[in-house]
Amino acid sequence: SEVKKIAVIAGDGIGPEVVGEAIKVLKKTEELFGYKFELEHGLFGGIAIDEKGTPLPKETLDICKKADAVLLGAVGGPKWDNNPKELRPETGLLGIRKALGLFSNIRPAVVFDCLKDASTLKPEVLEGTDLIVVRELTGGIYFGEKFRREGAQGQEAVDTCVYNVTEVERIVRQAFEIAGTRSKRLASVDKANVLETSRLWRETVNRIAPEYPDIELEHVLVDNCAMQLLRRPSSFDVIVTENMFGDILSDEAAMLTGSIGMLSSASLGEGSFGLYEPVHGSAPDIAGQGIANPIATILSVALMFKLTFGYQEAGDVIERAVKQVLDAGHRTGDIAVDKSKAIGTTAMGDLIVAAM
Amino acid sequence: SEVKKIAVIAGDGIGPEVVGEAIKVLKKTEELFGYKFELEHGLFGGIAIDEKGTPLPKETLDICKKADAVLLGAVGGPKWDNNPKELRPETGLLGIRKALGLFSNIRPAVVFDCLKDASTLKPEVLEGTDLIVVRELTGGIYFGEKFRREGAQGQEAVDTCVYNVTEVERIVRQAFEIAGTRSKRLASVDKANVLETSRLWRETVNRIAPEYPDIELEHVLVDNCAMQLLRRPSSFDVIVTENMFGDILSDEAAMLTGSIGMLSSASLGEGSFGLYEPVHGSAPDIAGQGIANPIATILSVALMFKLTFGYQEAGDVIERAVKQVLDAGHRTGDIAVDKSKAIGTTAMGDLIVAAM
Ligand SMILES: CC(C)[C@H](C(=O)O)[C@@H](O)C(=O)O
Ligand SMILES: CC(C)[C@H](C(=O)O)[C@@H](O)C(=O)O
Repeated sequence: SEVKKIAVIAGDGIGPEVVGEAIKVLKKTEELFGYKFELEHGLFGGIAIDEKGTPLPKETLDICKKADAVLLGAVGGPKWDNNPKELRPETGLLGIRKALGLFSNIRPAVVFDCLKDASTLKPEVLEGTDLIVVRELTGGIYFGEKFRREGAQGQEAVDTCVYNVTEVERIVRQAFEIAGTRSKRLASVDKANVLETSRLWRETVNRIAPEYPDIELEHVLVDNCAMQLLRRPSSFDVIVTENMFGDILSDEAAMLTGSIGMLSSASLGEGSFGLYEPVHGSAPDIAGQGIANPIATILSVALMFKLTFGYQEAGDVIERAVKQVLDAGHRTGDIAVDKSKAIGTTAMGDLIVAAM
Repeated sequence: SEVKKIAVIAGDGIGPEVVGEAIKVLKKTEELFGYKFELEHGLFGGIAIDEKGTPLPKETLDICKKADAVLLGAVGGPKWDNNPKELRPETGLLGIRKALGLFSNIRPAVVFDCLKDASTLKPEVLEGTDLIVVRELTGGIYFGEKFRREGAQGQEAVDTCVYNVTEVERIVRQAFEIAGTRSKRLASVDKANVLETSRLWRETVNRIAPEYPDIELEHVLVDNCAMQLLRRPSSFDVIVTENMFGDILSDEAAMLTGSIGMLSSASLGEGSFGLYEPVHGSAPDIAGQGIANPIATILSVALMFKLTFGYQEAGDVIERAVKQVLDAGHRTGDIAVDKSKAIGTTAMGDLIVAAM
């Protein structure tokens, strides 16, 4: 089959370790399914600041632009936390989203059976929770004009939140489409009782809704959604919302599953191109020790197969292999009940590859 | 003792019912402690829209301005949900906050022993949770300029988030002070890795912090805070944050206690003036049936006594009476395990008055 180009951005902290295991899984699918992947590595985040003086070097962006998909480990760490804005890993993250037109962030929050007890929620509340947060990723207050000025009351800071109809339409359509492939329920989250951007958002959702008559739509205010996620997590299917609300709610949703170390995410633009990464961060405290859990990154590969390449079957094979290894009782330290029996990053990767 | 003027705004839905019981409690303290309260009633919210054509009539605002404190029931309901902005109850709420200079919203999130099981969190996680969210209430994206305009990509909506140093200083100082009366831990929540207003916020917090050397300060990003509230709720003492983040996080914090029907809140300005209200809404579905839980409103009176009037002992008496009635097993429908044994609004109010 056709060669697929994957830009590989290992990043900082545990990034290189978990990406290493995901690459093993990629290679195994070449063997099993006859795929051909061409991997090109790029520097990004803290390591790029150290080596190239910028979190998102032009070479890295070029590698991503020429690729069919991007696999990202994790970026950031205390070393760069007090840097000026242009020299911070987050700036690279926002830059790559904008430069690649990744307007949609897809964050599945599912409960892994073997991790049910890791949640702080009662198991009976969590039962059946399987939702996706679709977050707008290149608009809103993240990308609006920001500045300081002198005012009558001393220095003032300003952030601007802007959305246009086209931006709202494309993310909302995508959320309706995704809901159509699942339980056909869509919750659109806004703060239409206060914000003008939310009123535009809600009007747009209501205008598009008749195109999807089989999807059950509810509008939920963001404060209420933060509550309902706790009270009735399993009643949500797809949640669609703007950038800032999505940042908060997707993290809340991920945490309530108790499975945050296992969750993958996709950032998509027009067409099939996508950037895939684990939800967890760079965990600088355990970096380099060979104990990080590679599963979220490996599952990000499965998501890439399904959403970008259309390799449905291979994606299923990866997901089943992960499940099989977990069912057999193997655990990395973060998810092990008995820490003394925990296995390392490489051992976990090898077991998953063997189970494929 | 001196006469205290209280503006009473019953509002919509169950507002009048729960406020009625709170007034009984006020009267009882006149009897027990020799206080004198002068109550002046004002129309506000939906009922004011219906009767006066505006959610916040000038007469009501005048009553509030002349008072020492305001007791508010609840506002809003589906009847007014599709009204134009000027004719919506929320507009009255934002208007009264601004007009009375109520820049600080204090929301205690505590777990009532008898309601532990009502939470969706595991009891062992919830154990010891007793936190206060201090939310900035008259600034930020709620009150910045909002408008629509035509852009290259169709219609655009804009919201502006503005904070000046003075606004941040006064709310942050208040939060440090409150933390000083409690467990001496303050979490300041922002999104300083993205927002300019958050960077101003964090700089200001760091500048003020040395004035409170005995308070342990942590900065938490808002997305991380949404997670940590779920993972380690009992580790928080006072959380201070800007308006929009506070709206979301205070509701999340309230819901995780499982006690949302029991929580009171205060909105404060300069000096001792304050507006007190239950955290729960107007519950239009059960309005007029005499079954609403009046405890959150009664506890709002206790908070008013402590924060505005300095009536510490009377506040304690109210709180103890509530506890005693609950310990004796009395429950309104919302918190009853055996719904058939639930008592009504008036019966609950009477029991609390009797226990005082
Ligand atoms: C690091 C930060 C800028 C980023 C965001 O807020 O988008 C992160 O929290 C995320 O959700 O990917
Ligand atoms: C009704 C709404 C405008 C209000 C707010 O967002 O402030 C409410 O959610 C609250 O928290 O008091």
